[in-house]
Formats: sequence, structure tokens, C-alpha cells
Amino acid sequence: MNFRSVLYILGRVLNIEGAFMLLPFFIALIYREDVLTAYAFTAALCAVTGFLICLCKPKNMTFYAREGFLATSLSWIVMGIFGCIPFVMTGEIPVFTDALFETISGFTTTGTTILNDIESLSLASLFWRSFTHWLGGMGVLVFLLALLPMTGGSHMNIMRAESPGPSVDKLMPKVRQTAAVLYSIYIALTVFEFIALIIVKMPVFDALNTAVATAGTGGFAVKNDSMASYSPAIQWVVAVFMMLFGVNFGFYFYIIRRRIKGAFSIQEVWHYALIIAAACALILISVSLSGETLADKSFVALPFSDKLRHTFFQVCAIITTTGFTTINFDSAWTEAAKLLLVVLMFVGACAGSTGGGIKISRITILMKTVWKETTLFFHPKRIVIIKNENKPVAHETIRSTNVYIMSYILIFIASVIIVSFDNFDFTTSFTAITTTLNNIGPGLNGAAGNFSAFSHLSKYVIMFDMLAGRLEIYPMMMLFVPELWKSIFKRR
Amino acid sequence: MNFRSVLYILGRVLNIEGAFMLLPFFIALIYREDVLTAYAFTAALCAVTGFLICLCKPKNMTFYAREGFLATSLSWIVMGIFGCIPFVMTGEIPVFTDALFETISGFTTTGTTILNDIESLSLASLFWRSFTHWLGGMGVLVFLLALLPMTGGSHMNIMRAESPGPSVDKLMPKVRQTAAVLYSIYIALTVFEFIALIIVKMPVFDALNTAVATAGTGGFAVKNDSMASYSPAIQWVVAVFMMLFGVNFGFYFYIIRRRIKGAFSIQEVWHYALIIAAACALILISVSLSGETLADKSFVALPFSDKLRHTFFQVCAIITTTGFTTINFDSAWTEAAKLLLVVLMFVGACAGSTGGGIKISRITILMKTVWKETTLFFHPKRIVIIKNENKPVAHETIRSTNVYIMSYILIFIASVIIVSFDNFDFTTSFTAITTTLNNIGPGLNGAAGNFSAFSHLSKYVIMFDMLAGRLEIYPMMMLFVPELWKSIFKRR
Repeated sequence: MNFRSVLYILGRVLNIEGAFMLLPFFIALIYREDVLTAYAFTAALCAVTGFLICLCKPKNMTFYAREGFLATSLSWIVMGIFGCIPFVMTGEIPVFTDALFETISGFTTTGTTILNDIESLSLASLFWRSFTHWLGGMGVLVFLLALLPMTGGSHMNIMRAESPGPSVDKLMPKVRQTAAVLYSIYIALTVFEFIALIIVKMPVFDALNTAVATAGTGGFAVKNDSMASYSPAIQWVVAVFMMLFGVNFGFYFYIIRRRIKGAFSIQEVWHYALIIAAACALILISVSLSGETLADKSFVALPFSDKLRHTFFQVCAIITTTGFTTINFDSAWTEAAKLLLVVLMFVGACAGSTGGGIKISRITILMKTVWKETTLFFHPKRIVIIKNENKPVAHETIRSTNVYIMSYILIFIASVIIVSFDNFDFTTSFTAITTTLNNIGPGLNGAAGNFSAFSHLSKYVIMFDMLAGRLEIYPMMMLFVPELWKSIFKRR
Repeated sequence: MNFRSVLYILGRVLNIEGAFMLLPFFIALIYREDVLTAYAFTAALCAVTGFLICLCKPKNMTFYAREGFLATSLSWIVMGIFGCIPFVMTGEIPVFTDALFETISGFTTTGTTILNDIESLSLASLFWRSFTHWLGGMGVLVFLLALLPMTGGSHMNIMRAESPGPSVDKLMPKVRQTAAVLYSIYIALTVFEFIALIIVKMPVFDALNTAVATAGTGGFAVKNDSMASYSPAIQWVVAVFMMLFGVNFGFYFYIIRRRIKGAFSIQEVWHYALIIAAACALILISVSLSGETLADKSFVALPFSDKLRHTFFQVCAIITTTGFTTINFDSAWTEAAKLLLVVLMFVGACAGSTGGGIKISRITILMKTVWKETTLFFHPKRIVIIKNENKPVAHETIRSTNVYIMSYILIFIASVIIVSFDNFDFTTSFTAITTTLNNIGPGLNGAAGNFSAFSHLSKYVIMFDMLAGRLEIYPMMMLFVPELWKSIFKRR
């Protein structure tokens, strides 16, 4: 284990975090807020700590899978710890556990909050909260790869550990180029959304926050009612951009290269569009079937065009794992609608997007595997090849997809059991883990609003789940392999 | 596809069902009940139909996997349809869908009922209801294999299709001998339980019903309150026998052969005992932590010995997928206890027992696979061999276990979505499918009592799930392969 190179990465990540913390510092400067000092101090702390760590430069930067995974999991934990310092210093979230929870919820693009009154935060803190989504969405290590000319070793292992999906597309021959292309698309789309939101007359500060939170498929809003009080036009713009950020970024890469045919031949994008359309249709059907029985008629009583907007918004918000809401998530939807949304939480967005969840391409591979095995009972000698995007799927990918989903389920069950000791009802415990492991935000019943009522133990379990969900499990699981720690401490 | 031999099996199955229907006929005769004619008529109908079908004897009895699976799924559907005729004829369950639901719930050893007042049934019908559990527990086709000297073809394919677990132990060299040994152990254990129940002073009729229902890990009781009104001694006996019927029958086979060491070296049995002990401990801890917050103090207020009895009883009833209850399942347990019980529903009993669920050996293989993949990230070149019962697990078994669990989850999700359109809350829809796909009986909230409130569509979905759970998915999935039907109709 080349632990020094892992440490070096940690130092660099702190440098980047410190640099980005100047943004809320400037916000505080512009709006003349007292929290300015907290952000200045933390930015300096990140810079100095990062600098000190990087003094001890490693002899070689060889990154095998294990170094890549370890660098990723530790980076994200360190980012969370340093990122929450301003919240504690300003007293806006005085309890460390809660501040850490909020920050990890931000970086992992979950968007689950422990705050009761979001609007009471300073503007600088509101922006830092939203901006953690943006940084976590595409990944800070991918950013690092785009910036730093690192020599030697396969940096693909870092990229692979932080990027979502069963396999990472190498859009360009070099990792650094790929990372740069991804961040360029990411920045461009974020700017487009910001401009679009300004055009439909959203206040500038709100538009800025909403654009970065949508880009990372996060879900932290600047209003207590999420997106409910904005105009229909704003809601449409946000819904469309949520959908766009859930698309495989390979699609945009093709578009830029003017390979329109190539872009539209990505099957995952079609499946994604199909699932969104089907979910909207099923929810609208269920509302027309049993909407009248609901106590909360705030949705059912609306004209069809409004129903369509809210439904499309909510489906996009859930499948992309953003988690914004426009109507009361818990009381205004029918039971079938809520259940469909919970299922969509697990499905998640496209691989290679900023969204979380299991990812559509994994679900596709999974369903094809099941179908293959069923037909093999009928034709035991037939050779069935599973294809994805018209290419045969490697046996290794199928196996790792299966194991991935199994690990996912095991972590899910263990987490639900621990959280259930807080004595919330079944739906609350179940959806609290569903919404955090899949990096969404709101759950049902007791998990519909804020998570402050959970015990400290549950909060740490949920933080682990948020990280496991964002980093796709293995980097976090590796922390539990005893040999990892043995090999690190043996070296010292 | 050798459809004639499948038809022949169906005919024989009907013969056996007709013969066993003489048992409720005799009960009606003894207690002088009017329902006598209904059972006589249906027994005759089964016999005649079976005889007519068997007239057309197939030229060869070759059974490949597909014939084995098809014979199994069709047999169980036919058994359900003929088995529900008495309920409809006597008017005790006048609606066909409900009668079929109750019968399939019986044969699949689920024990979910649509009846509001169980005690209003005739004794003959009560017995037939309980006895379907016994017949379904070990499997009617296994019974057929024990009886019929069939020549040619691998009858292991029938046995494999009907017996639970990732691989079927061939206890004896010949399939017929294995089937006979299994049934002998089954009958002996049932008789032991009956005697034990008589000793602890259970009424004879109740003891008879309880013994057959426990043996099949079914869960239909003769009282509206399941096992709540019986004495603690009776509850202890039932609990212990539930646990015994959840053990891999290979264990008893070793015991009979006086290979005690061999019996106790079956790891699955140890895991089973460990899970039961751990679940009891966790439930008792959760009750002492948050039991005081419950509105229903009927359990919390009891002395420790009673708490232990109820907890042990409930854990055994759930993990073996029997589903008897001694206290109010829905209101008297803490949320953590309920959640643990729901998790146990999925775990299920040992492979090679009469219990349902995913089975402990599958869960073990699954966890070992996940652990293997995680350590492989750390040591990519290490060769890790997954062992079960101290023998390396074949790659094929690992793959089929993975695919099995995937299919399980897909059927689960599809069923929950359809049932959710009945507009029950999340917990009800979720646990209704959990409890039926795993062949248990009671769920939570609206699924805690009887299932009569579900729509006809939901009832048929649940019937499918009960069959899929009992027959371990593939025989039921095969019915959806279009080529199956093409090949059958092409032949005609």
C-alpha cells in the first residue's frame, strides 16, 4: 500500500476545498455578513493543512485500485470534516454531528437536512451548503485530475473510484483530458441553467444556489418549502435541468463533437426517458383512480397542466436523486405514487451523470441477466450473450454488477436495522435509508422533513450510507478490511 | 417439450389430491357435518379427472429441467383450483377468487387468510385448510416420486423444481429413496408433535390441525387469535417444533444414521440457531429500550419469562415462515422488533426444510461472495474460493444464487407496485408482498390481519407470489417464456 501518495492526494484535496471556500467568503463580503471570519479562517486552515501534508511528497504516485479507493473514501471524509467547520464556528449548526451530517449530505449530493429553519442561515452559509453539491456532484478528485499533471501510475483508478456507474467511459485518451471535458460540460450546463433561471425571473442569489444544487443533483434549497413558492416557469426550468443533469455525460460529449447519431444511439438515455414518461403516466393514473380518497387535496384539486408540472418535476427530482419538491411529498401524493417514487429512488439516474442510485445501466444489465437465466432453463444449450449499448457485456462487469447490488442490499438492511432502534415506524426507517443511501433527500412519514430527530448513532450510520451511495460502496467498504489498516501501520 | 409426460404427472397429482381429500371427508363423517357431500364430490372429481388424463400414457417419461419445472408449476395451479372447490360448494368461501386464494395460501404454506371468522368454518373445512399446509410443505410431487416407480429420465429435475434451496441433497442414491426418506422423517416429526401437543393437553382436533400446519410451516390456525389463547406449555411445544421443521432435513437423516458428528457439522444449522438467538436478544433489548413508548402494553408489561416465550415463539414462527402468532403482531412489538421480524421474513429457514424465504444457505453464499469481492479489491491477485459446508461452491451455484435473488427482488418490486394501486399505505403494501412471497402469513398495518380488503387483481398477484415463493421462482417464471407455449401448441 502506497500510503504516502494517498496522503498527498488528501493534501491536494484540502487545498482545493480551501480555494473553493473563498466563494462563500466573497458572498459574505458582498452582503457584509459576520460569518466572513469563519470562512476566511477555515479556508486558511484548509490551505495550511493541505500544504503541510504535501510537503512530504511521495517518491512515486502509483495508484492501484486499493490506493484509488482509499484516497477517495478518505478525501471525502476529510472534506466533510473541514467543510463543516464554518457551520460550527458561526453557531448556525452548533452541534458537530449535525454540522458534519449537513456537510456530508451536501458533498454526497443527498440534500437531507437537520435544519428546521433553512431561511435563518446567513447567505454565505446558504451558498456554501448549495455549493458542496456542485463540488460533490462531479467529484473533487475528478477536478484534481483535471488540474494536476500527475506523472506515473494509472489515475484511472481514482477516476473509477469516484465516478458513478458500472464502468467509466474514457471519453478521451488521457484521464486528465477526460476529467477536463467532463468539468467543461458540467460548468457549461450550470451556467446555462443560471441564465435560464434569470430569464424566468428568479432572484440572482436563489438562481445561483439553485443552479449549483441542480447541477450536482443535490437538493438543498434556500427556502424552507424547497421549490414550492417559485413560479411555474421556474419550476419547469428546474425540472428540465434536473432531467438534463441525470443524462449520461457521454451524450453531451457526442453532441459537442457533432455526432448526433452517436448521442441518440445511447440506449441508457432512451431507457431513462422511457422510465420518466412511464412513471409520470402511472402517477397521473393512480391520482385519477384514488386521488379523491386523500385527506390532502392540494394536488388532486389542481387543473391537469399543474398536475403534469408537479408530477414531471417530482419524477425528475427523484430519479435524478436531486430531491427538490414543489408540493408536500408525504401527504399530497397517492400511496401508489409514493411507492413508485420510492422505487425510482433505487433506480437512480444514468451512469456517467451526477445522479445517484443504482443507475439505469446496472438495472438493465441485471434484468438482462435474469432473462438470460430464465431462457437458459428452456434452452440449456443456447449461448446467450448479454449486450449493453450494442456491445457484449464482459463477464467481469456482470459479476461486479451483481455483487454491487448485493452489497447495496446488505448495507441497506444493516442500516435499516440500526436506525429502527430509534423506534420510528417502518416507513420512516425504511425510507430514511432509501433516500440517503441513494443520495436523494426527502423520504416518507418521519423522514419526509428534516432528520434532526434521529439519534447520533443513526446520524453516523446515515452519513456512512450517504458516502457509500455517492462513492458506490467499495471505497467505503474497504475501510472495514482489517488488512488495509495492518498494511498502513506496518509501514510506519 | 415432452408435454404428454407433464400431463401425465398432472393426472397423478389429481389422483393424490383426491385421495387426501378423503381425510376431510372422514372428519365430516365423524362430526356429522353437512359439508360431507362437497368433499365426497370433489374427491371423486379429482379421481375421475386424474384417471382420464392418465389414460393417454406418454411414450417416454423423459424429464429435462423444463419439463420438471412446467410439471411443477402446473401441478400446483391445478391443485389450487381443485382444492378450492369444497370451499365454494359449501358456501363457506362463496367467491371463487377468495377460495382459490385461501387454498393457494394453504398449499404454499403461507397461511395468509381472507376469512374474518375462522372459527365459523366446519371442522372438515378447517382440517382441509390445515392439511393443505402439510401436503404443500414437503411437496406433492416429492410424494408422487416416493410412490410411483417411474422409469427413464431424470426425475431429479422434478425434485429439484419442487424442493427448496440452492441445491438439492441427494440423501440416497435414487430419487425415489430420497423422496421416501424425506417423507418418513416428515411424517415421524408430525406424529411426535401431535403426541407432544396431546401431552400438554391441547384438544385432539386442535392438536391434529396444529401439528400438520406446523409441519408444513404453514400458519393456518383453528382459532381467530392464532395461538394466543392456548396455554404457555402448548406455545412452547409449538415454538420448538416450528424451529425443528425449519432445520435442514439432512440433519435428521444423519441423526437416524447415527452420524451425530455429521449432523452437527452442518454449518447452516448452526447459522440458523445463531440467527434465532441473536434475533431474540435484539428484540428483547429493543423492548427494554423503547417498549415503554408503545400504546399497547400487552407485551411490555409481562414478566421476563413470558416475554422470552413470546419472543422465541414469534422469531421461530417468522424465520421458519410458519406465521403463527401469540400476541398482536402489529401493535405489541416495538418498531425495531417489527423491522427485525420483517428482515427474518426474507432470510427464511434452512434449505432442505419445509420453510420458505430466501434460505440461510443462499444468504451465506451471498455474504461470502460480497466479502470475496471486497478483499479482491485489496489483493487483486489472491485466489479466493467460496466454501459452503466446507466444500467449495461451484461457480454455477454462486451465479444461480445471485440470479435467484435478483429475480426475487424484481418480482417483489413489480408486485408491490401493482398492489400499491389499492391505495394502502407503504407499510401495508410492502409487508403484504413480503409475507406472501416468503410464505409467512401476517404482515404489518393493513396486512397484519386478513387480506379480504385487497382488490381481485392484487389477490391474483399475491397468489402468483405465493407460488413463486414456494416453488422458488423459476417454475413460475417459465410460464412467461413465450417459446414454452409456442413449443406446446406446435406439437398439437
